[in-house]
Amino acid sequence: MKSIFTRIIEREIPAYIVYEDDLVIAFLDISQATKGHTLVVPKKVYENLYEMPDELASHVMKISIKLAKAIQKAFKPAGLNLLNNNGEIAGQSVFHFHMHLIPRYENDGVSMRFSNHMNDLNPEDYKNRAKEITSAL
Amino acid sequence: MKSIFTRIIEREIPAYIVYEDDLVIAFLDISQATKGHTLVVPKKVYENLYEMPDELASHVMKISIKLAKAIQKAFKPAGLNLLNNNGEIAGQSVFHFHMHLIPRYENDGVSMRFSNHMNDLNPEDYKNRAKEITSAL
Repeated sequence: MKSIFTRIIEREIPAYIVYEDDLVIAFLDISQATKGHTLVVPKKVYENLYEMPDELASHVMKISIKLAKAIQKAFKPAGLNLLNNNGEIAGQSVFHFHMHLIPRYENDGVSMRFSNHMNDLNPEDYKNRAKEITSAL
Repeated sequence: MKSIFTRIIEREIPAYIVYEDDLVIAFLDISQATKGHTLVVPKKVYENLYEMPDELASHVMKISIKLAKAIQKAFKPAGLNLLNNNGEIAGQSVFHFHMHLIPRYENDGVSMRFSNHMNDLNPEDYKNRAKEITSAL
């Protein structure tokens, strides 16, 4: 089944498109978590970050910067989050890779919370984790 | 004043480094919001996404994918968030561009909440927002 993004790309369903080239399309996220919330989406379907070819991911990044600057100019947000979710547990709801640009404003209703586990871990834990990653590279 | 990341790059302070090349360094985020939480940081200081040259941002993206795959292999997380915060309001605490790789697990204590404003907005609002962005491109 086609993803909702493929249907937007193929003009089967409408969207508020802000940028398009041969490789990617960008449009307003319909939820508008904040004013100007935009998605950058490759036209070819890749489910997630792991599947993305480097060149295409680089192009997504380049266009994300271009759009972040335009959003900055247009709405003067106080900040911006660039966010890519992989897996349902990480908040991914459309299984077609996409990068969120989320401009941030005072009292914008966005909340991101992370625990700090520094006091639960000892140097050996850090060393082991680092080693597990480098061994998998 | 040097950022804490520059001090890590210059080996003034230790870090659990998992990758390094001429342009970027990657190390465990000391907070370990989740197991394997890693930062990818350009060696040259750019405060935020807006200042990043396209080529360097592309390289950060490429290395982020490489590390995301290694983290996937090492820890088998159920998901992963790629996150870049720009501005204090967006959660940026070190003003030296960095990309977070946050592996996600069941009950990992990470929470991200966004409002859905679809029912507060009419087609004109969306059109105007899209037009403001495209005019600023």
